[in-house]
Amino acid sequence: MIIIGEKINSVRKPVFTAIESRDRKYIQKEAQMQSESGADYIDVSASAFKDQEAACLMWLIEVVQEVTDIPLSIDTPDPVVVKKVLPLVKKPPMINSVTLDPSHLEGILPWARDYDCAVIGLCQTRKRMGKTAAEKTEMAGQLIEKVSSSGIDIKKLYIDPLVFPVGADFKSAAAALNAIGQIMGSYTGVHTVCGLTNVSYGLPNGKLINRTFLVQALSLGLDSAILDPTDRQLIGALRAAWMLLGKDDYCAQYLKAFRQGLIE
Amino acid sequence: MIIIGEKINSVRKPVFTAIESRDRKYIQKEAQMQSESGADYIDVSASAFKDQEAACLMWLIEVVQEVTDIPLSIDTPDPVVVKKVLPLVKKPPMINSVTLDPSHLEGILPWARDYDCAVIGLCQTRKRMGKTAAEKTEMAGQLIEKVSSSGIDIKKLYIDPLVFPVGADFKSAAAALNAIGQIMGSYTGVHTVCGLTNVSYGLPNGKLINRTFLVQALSLGLDSAILDPTDRQLIGALRAAWMLLGKDDYCAQYLKAFRQGLIE
Repeated sequence: MIIIGEKINSVRKPVFTAIESRDRKYIQKEAQMQSESGADYIDVSASAFKDQEAACLMWLIEVVQEVTDIPLSIDTPDPVVVKKVLPLVKKPPMINSVTLDPSHLEGILPWARDYDCAVIGLCQTRKRMGKTAAEKTEMAGQLIEKVSSSGIDIKKLYIDPLVFPVGADFKSAAAALNAIGQIMGSYTGVHTVCGLTNVSYGLPNGKLINRTFLVQALSLGLDSAILDPTDRQLIGALRAAWMLLGKDDYCAQYLKAFRQGLIE
Repeated sequence: MIIIGEKINSVRKPVFTAIESRDRKYIQKEAQMQSESGADYIDVSASAFKDQEAACLMWLIEVVQEVTDIPLSIDTPDPVVVKKVLPLVKKPPMINSVTLDPSHLEGILPWARDYDCAVIGLCQTRKRMGKTAAEKTEMAGQLIEKVSSSGIDIKKLYIDPLVFPVGADFKSAAAALNAIGQIMGSYTGVHTVCGLTNVSYGLPNGKLINRTFLVQALSLGLDSAILDPTDRQLIGALRAAWMLLGKDDYCAQYLKAFRQGLIE
């Protein structure tokens, strides 16, 4: 299970403020807490800064790398920003994300290959987002083809089926779950990844819905997620689910997380 | 989703005491609380009373039927007890349970057919319990054949794959989950059912493990469970999971349960 820590994102108000005021301590604490909670990648996003995105992201990368050896997830949709920041990264990062838009594929994949990056690929073209399970799965196939033909091993591809609010379309979460099942059943070696917060938008008990969706997605083959690794209820659901799927030898990871107080 | 309320079971100490002292009020309160929490069947078990089982179960059936119209789940492995109590039941009940033991099948199925009962069938022969997914699925096929040939529609059969403690065998829960997926994918109309408490035996945070297992089983097709319908965290996970699978039109059941304070 690959956990991408989502907390250092400029759309979160306190993170925006910390970046704006160049508050190293705040950012480094967020990085360390996620690292200690078991994150495999630390996502860094400065996209809320628009024209200043590249400068802010370069600062974030420098500041986070001072306190942790965990690889980064470079979170930007802009190929120009990707090119600017990649030379600063100490370990092969993840790029979050590419779509099927040709400008994305052509602007990012060659750099991802040269820097040995993992890549998140969204089930989305320039014009539309995959809604049904069939659309998502078809776009996943196209992503795999594009990534492979650019010289990147599909073991480095993390396909995000896109998850929409179930409160707006009550079939939408099932479409994502079915797509995960079909993708993981059809392509050996590829990963699937999800963000979780969208799914509960507008409904009460959002965190319950988010962690329930995570457990379901895991049982259909999901092997990576973008989430808050310091959320003890969420990580409890994740560790329990992983164990129940028979993927946690002798329940060791679950018991360790329990003893460390990381789950509830 | 069919919920079988598990609370009126003589292995629970306060229930044992209530049956022993013929405390109608205690039993009726347990029945009403489960009914108000959305149970579709109320399980009644007096198997801890051994020689007195039939008399105690007849008393339980009479007492529960005074306060609720919800059908009963007659919980006994003894064909003699089944025959004694069936004439008392006002609505077609569920019989919990039969195995592949011929004395079970021959002693119970004809009565189940004549009284229009639903039947829980365990993946278990006289000599052994299904351990691997393949064994469970093979036994499920045998249960379907036996039930069909006795003249009972398989829509009335609830197959229990058997769930063992994951702490004792870390692959055991995955075997049950895979069996559920295979059974529900292979046989149209049949149901699957599970108890949840076994799976977490010996591990910390047992309730987390139980409800995580329920969510996983639902995502693989489980459509019934034996559980405590008054457990708000468990029912929260169940209602959220059902909604995320696209089975709750316009999220209505989830929102209703939230408004009624039945979930958290």
